[in-house]
Amino acid sequence: MGSTEQLPKMQYRFLGRSGLQVSVISLGGWVTYGGHVGDQLAFDCMKAAYDAGINFFDCAEAYAGGKSEEVMGQAIKKYGWKRNDLVISTKINWGSAFGDNPVNNGGLSRKHLIEGTNMALERLQLDYVDLLYCHRPDRNTPMEETVRAMNYLINTGKAFYWGTSEWNSEEIAMAWACAERLNLIGPVMEQPQYNMLTRDKVEREFALLYEYYGTGLTIFSPLKTGILTGKYNEGIPDDSRYANATDAFSTGKAKSYGDEGWLKDIENTRKLQKIAEKLGADQTQLAYAWVIKNPHVSSAITGASKVEQVTKAVQSLSLLDKLTPEIMKEIDDTLGNAPAPLTRRF
Amino acid sequence: MGSTEQLPKMQYRFLGRSGLQVSVISLGGWVTYGGHVGDQLAFDCMKAAYDAGINFFDCAEAYAGGKSEEVMGQAIKKYGWKRNDLVISTKINWGSAFGDNPVNNGGLSRKHLIEGTNMALERLQLDYVDLLYCHRPDRNTPMEETVRAMNYLINTGKAFYWGTSEWNSEEIAMAWACAERLNLIGPVMEQPQYNMLTRDKVEREFALLYEYYGTGLTIFSPLKTGILTGKYNEGIPDDSRYANATDAFSTGKAKSYGDEGWLKDIENTRKLQKIAEKLGADQTQLAYAWVIKNPHVSSAITGASKVEQVTKAVQSLSLLDKLTPEIMKEIDDTLGNAPAPLTRRF
Amino acid sequence: MGSTEQLPKMQYRFLGRSGLQVSVISLGGWVTYGGHVGDQLAFDCMKAAYDAGINFFDCAEAYAGGKSEEVMGQAIKKYGWKRNDLVISTKINWGSAFGDNPVNNGGLSRKHLIEGTNMALERLQLDYVDLLYCHRPDRNTPMEETVRAMNYLINTGKAFYWGTSEWNSEEIAMAWACAERLNLIGPVMEQPQYNMLTRDKVEREFALLYEYYGTGLTIFSPLKTGILTGKYNEGIPDDSRYANATDAFSTGKAKSYGDEGWLKDIENTRKLQKIAEKLGADQTQLAYAWVIKNPHVSSAITGASKVEQVTKAVQSLSLLDKLTPEIMKEIDDTLGNAPAPLTRRF
Amino acid sequence: MGSTEQLPKMQYRFLGRSGLQVSVISLGGWVTYGGHVGDQLAFDCMKAAYDAGINFFDCAEAYAGGKSEEVMGQAIKKYGWKRNDLVISTKINWGSAFGDNPVNNGGLSRKHLIEGTNMALERLQLDYVDLLYCHRPDRNTPMEETVRAMNYLINTGKAFYWGTSEWNSEEIAMAWACAERLNLIGPVMEQPQYNMLTRDKVEREFALLYEYYGTGLTIFSPLKTGILTGKYNEGIPDDSRYANATDAFSTGKAKSYGDEGWLKDIENTRKLQKIAEKLGADQTQLAYAWVIKNPHVSSAITGASKVEQVTKAVQSLSLLDKLTPEIMKEIDDTLGNAPAPLTRRF
Repeated sequence: MGSTEQLPKMQYRFLGRSGLQVSVISLGGWVTYGGHVGDQLAFDCMKAAYDAGINFFDCAEAYAGGKSEEVMGQAIKKYGWKRNDLVISTKINWGSAFGDNPVNNGGLSRKHLIEGTNMALERLQLDYVDLLYCHRPDRNTPMEETVRAMNYLINTGKAFYWGTSEWNSEEIAMAWACAERLNLIGPVMEQPQYNMLTRDKVEREFALLYEYYGTGLTIFSPLKTGILTGKYNEGIPDDSRYANATDAFSTGKAKSYGDEGWLKDIENTRKLQKIAEKLGADQTQLAYAWVIKNPHVSSAITGASKVEQVTKAVQSLSLLDKLTPEIMKEIDDTLGNAPAPLTRRF
Repeated sequence: MGSTEQLPKMQYRFLGRSGLQVSVISLGGWVTYGGHVGDQLAFDCMKAAYDAGINFFDCAEAYAGGKSEEVMGQAIKKYGWKRNDLVISTKINWGSAFGDNPVNNGGLSRKHLIEGTNMALERLQLDYVDLLYCHRPDRNTPMEETVRAMNYLINTGKAFYWGTSEWNSEEIAMAWACAERLNLIGPVMEQPQYNMLTRDKVEREFALLYEYYGTGLTIFSPLKTGILTGKYNEGIPDDSRYANATDAFSTGKAKSYGDEGWLKDIENTRKLQKIAEKLGADQTQLAYAWVIKNPHVSSAITGASKVEQVTKAVQSLSLLDKLTPEIMKEIDDTLGNAPAPLTRRF
Repeated sequence: MGSTEQLPKMQYRFLGRSGLQVSVISLGGWVTYGGHVGDQLAFDCMKAAYDAGINFFDCAEAYAGGKSEEVMGQAIKKYGWKRNDLVISTKINWGSAFGDNPVNNGGLSRKHLIEGTNMALERLQLDYVDLLYCHRPDRNTPMEETVRAMNYLINTGKAFYWGTSEWNSEEIAMAWACAERLNLIGPVMEQPQYNMLTRDKVEREFALLYEYYGTGLTIFSPLKTGILTGKYNEGIPDDSRYANATDAFSTGKAKSYGDEGWLKDIENTRKLQKIAEKLGADQTQLAYAWVIKNPHVSSAITGASKVEQVTKAVQSLSLLDKLTPEIMKEIDDTLGNAPAPLTRRF
Repeated sequence: MGSTEQLPKMQYRFLGRSGLQVSVISLGGWVTYGGHVGDQLAFDCMKAAYDAGINFFDCAEAYAGGKSEEVMGQAIKKYGWKRNDLVISTKINWGSAFGDNPVNNGGLSRKHLIEGTNMALERLQLDYVDLLYCHRPDRNTPMEETVRAMNYLINTGKAFYWGTSEWNSEEIAMAWACAERLNLIGPVMEQPQYNMLTRDKVEREFALLYEYYGTGLTIFSPLKTGILTGKYNEGIPDDSRYANATDAFSTGKAKSYGDEGWLKDIENTRKLQKIAEKLGADQTQLAYAWVIKNPHVSSAITGASKVEQVTKAVQSLSLLDKLTPEIMKEIDDTLGNAPAPLTRRF
């Protein structure tokens, strides 16, 4: 991998207040692997990521009906990577592809969390994942049932740490309250969307969680499904995911194409072009570097589906030092979306 | 299954305050499967139930000396149903058929709960059941021993949830008190008898349990062993279970045939005929729809031993909307057995 | 087994406050099996016991260097008895026969309790015992270490209940205090010596344990190593264990032969002869019936090494009804050794 | 082993307040086994140790990149020693040799503790170790994560006891506070450096730990990497470890050769020569006997790489009785390094 020789050295961060270290850039198999991207291309992306020092690979049972997990598992076998060198995650919820009846193949019930995890591990050909996420909250299942089931999975060796994805701050606090009441293990990490255009949750809503529970973040959508690359500034290119949406996730996003919020995002993205140029970087690198600059972000997950995209994500690390307080303020002023700090006293 | 095309869409409810969903109609293998009903007929009933959207199949070690579990297990294999699409239960107690000495093959001791469950899982050819019931209370075994043993079975992956069958409200509360004191998992569900003629326990005695512990009900005997079908209105037909009682359960019930309570039930059943006719339904459907109308009933277990009986149970779902508050009041007035509401303050 | 037809029906009692039932007469493999008694004779005794309704078979790693457990395990296989019909126990401590260094092959450390139990289960060819005893206290090991290790063995399915053998009342109370502090399972049963000549511990020292913890007793030495049969009244017969002592246990006891305590026991035994005659029983039967009469005794373990001895022990059940309060008082008056009741208030 | 006939009888001590007994002299595979010492020599040392009554063999994943554990495991198989006669330890941390990326192959995270232990057990060809150490503190991992992971390893049967190596007293107290808060098992033992020249930690800093938590010590470096043998009194011999340092550990130590602290140690060692002579012993024996004389030392680990060194360590036991209070005081006066007693009241 000659090109990786030129790449900046990978950086690793502790996942929140845990003792686990994840690469600040990680690779996710969102709609990509097992979906519209061919297996060989997925293997190539994973290999490029691994060679660049990426140790964290993120998956979910919901991605491409489980095929995403299968492809990841095959890559691990194919390249003979050592299990202890890898941080593998999956997420449980929305497993309706694995049953003939959607009932009980979704949600965060004890039944689905255990059955779903067992099936995911089979697809991954692994004995355990490092990180196991509750994919979105399930407000029909009592918190205690979910917290106990996640602890069951840790106690039976199926996972090392558990966390949440797209939960609200009060739900995470309720999970901790429940875990502390029962002397169980609480959620170590949360996986929210976070990027230059979507900031409130990570920068304001979660502020107390970092302090009280040491919540670590593995953020997704650092490019806001590509908008922040600037590639939509002049319209939708033929080879983009939006133009070729065939799955529920992409289609869902594509629906918002052209609406008010989307146009505002494009407008803001255009404004960032000057700052990127001033730093001698392209907008993609700026977007990655900006999320990593936030110390609460343990890892930014790229959904790269081309080797070049993996490479570009890693190259953004060389930009970190250039994001001085002055530049960060300029970005805040340009976007005008920095959340007001949390009021501490009432 | 052409006929099932015509059936109303199955409905699912959360099992009490748990995250598990069960079909509101479920199939039980009470005296039926493995007993006087041939295996093929049992398979046909299960297939008809599954095709109609029934996902919950109920069993017990005590039914037909374990053969009921064997037949259920064979059906699951035969039809290749996915484990995650099914909610399978069994109940432990009265396992004397499995030993040469009745001692320790019954009751809710740690020994029998663990040995009984292991043997039941073998008969079912399953690694785990979803629901595991303590079949009737055992007042000779300390509550803590039973609660700990049920948690052991959950912690070793043999069951996902545990509950009780025909326990009193104070016994269920004592199980919860014990579980809460020891930070263990409490009983999620209770399986009582419930039907238009037997209402006190479900409608009055358990009232506080729903509030405090979210107890879910999987009720049995919705037709009061057939009386509510109206088929005994004019005497006992030759092909009924009463007429052909060969096992302890049926024989036990048959003994009460003709006594005062039985005659009163028949009399009340006759009175319901007019209401059923007004709704354009037969009495069986009315009886099923009426128990399901109670939101505390997560599932009504039919002991159907003919495919037509399964079908008729499911058809009752189309009657639910017709059970208006006015009709429900008319039924209460006709039967005169609505329990007085629980006094909340003294 | 024609002769067993004539035997009184076996009685079963709950083991203290547990839900487990044991036969009031049980068979122990103390110095007998694997020792000076041939294997076939041991098999015959176990078969006679089983046929008479005895369901509880008691062992220990210390008995005959583990051979006692081997013989018991072989008998279970040989006769094809069902595991769920049996209550099997063993005791851990004094396992020096299983190592080349006595260090860590005895005591109640976590290491020896776990290693000792694993080795005992191998000798017994069983997956678990029903009852696991701490054989004598180990005052060098902290109570918490022992209580945790016994719970580990229960939680890993190696035993259903744990108890103690020849512990003092305060040690049993300390084990319960430790278990309650840590939310763990406490000791259900104690195995003390108890017979007409040795009464203080069971009748006085343990009084509060029955009330507070429901401690059940599986007593050993109901005949005080044979003295209470009356066979030593006129001297030591050639075929008695005392005369042929070859192992540490028997030898140890034999040493006290002829001393003051021994002579007093013989004298008291002689006095009981008249009472036995009045009841139409021999002294052996009287001795068994007398210990079983105590409701705190869940089971009296006979160390029978001949089929006739097993039979005689069981026959004593027919004597229970004859032990009226008047006869019991007469025995107390004759022996003059009834412990004073515990002072409840100071 | 003719020579071992002459050796003093091995002594055993309880490991702190646990019920486990370890030989007061033990053998460690620090830099020795799997490193610059050939396998056969390592086997010979272990055999000599075993024959002398040593039952405790100490290892670590960090020693010689895991080869140390492999050699120890081979010796156990080769000589057919019984598992229950042995106390085997290993330590987790610094396992970078086992991955291609140092990240997550060190530290005391749940991931590394579990993965590291599993890999160590494979190298040792054992199902469990008796003692599992956290090798140095990891201040990046929360105490709760480490305490929970060590308990997971005990609960899954991979270890019997856990402890620490070179932790500070407050860190050990924090581990206990965490364990007690969560009802988990605390660290039973600590492995610090301790010898006549390095005394503060063991004699002063840990004073309260012995009282409160019963912390047992398995001390290393009783000869301070050979200095206390007196062999450096006249310079560095050609065949010493210092002269042939090829690994990180030795090299690290070698770097301090000649510096102020090293010269002071040599000077003090020279002063001890007279005392050794007075006792009719050589300095090596005096150094071993002196550390064992401290009752808080459960075992002194020798890193012997020659059979003669093992023998000499064991011979030191004959010196224990000669270390009278007067001699101990003379040593204190000679070295002038006895720590001041801990102030108990402020």
